[in-house]
Amino acid sequence: MIKAIVYVTIKQSVLDPQGVAVQGALHSMGFKEVDSVRIGKYMELQLDTNDRNEAETRVKEMCEKLLANTVVEDYRFELEG
Amino acid sequence: MIKAIVYVTIKQSVLDPQGVAVQGALHSMGFKEVDSVRIGKYMELQLDTNDRNEAETRVKEMCEKLLANTVVEDYRFELEG
Repeated sequence: MIKAIVYVTIKQSVLDPQGVAVQGALHSMGFKEVDSVRIGKYMELQLDTNDRNEAETRVKEMCEKLLANTVVEDYRFELEG
Repeated sequence: MIKAIVYVTIKQSVLDPQGVAVQGALHSMGFKEVDSVRIGKYMELQLDTNDRNEAETRVKEMCEKLLANTVVEDYRFELEG
């Protein structure tokens, strides 16, 4: 079993309305020190394989095809185990 | 400036319907090796402070009050810079 941790983040040049909303909420709650908030996704995938090289190729393919929208999002991943 | 990276994940005992849906989609795309998917949030907060101890206390407070729903979610965070 290999565990893949995938991080999907909105590209720096793209507006993140969810982050802006959370920043506004934090400000109105008194957390005035919060300058900016960017929100992404964090995914844990359990893979039924022990071949790290294959897992690397396959997870990259999953990211490109489904997990990330590469027009507006960046992704990176780590493999564990 | 301190950067806080916050990870919010659904507790192990709680069903993650978004993860189940993504797993189903990956299966139907031929990624049969995917045993399970859990989806959480990844947040980057820029804090206008240089006091790490204060930042630690404040980010914990933000997580408890807004960023995580501690009934069904776990959170952890790291401070950088």
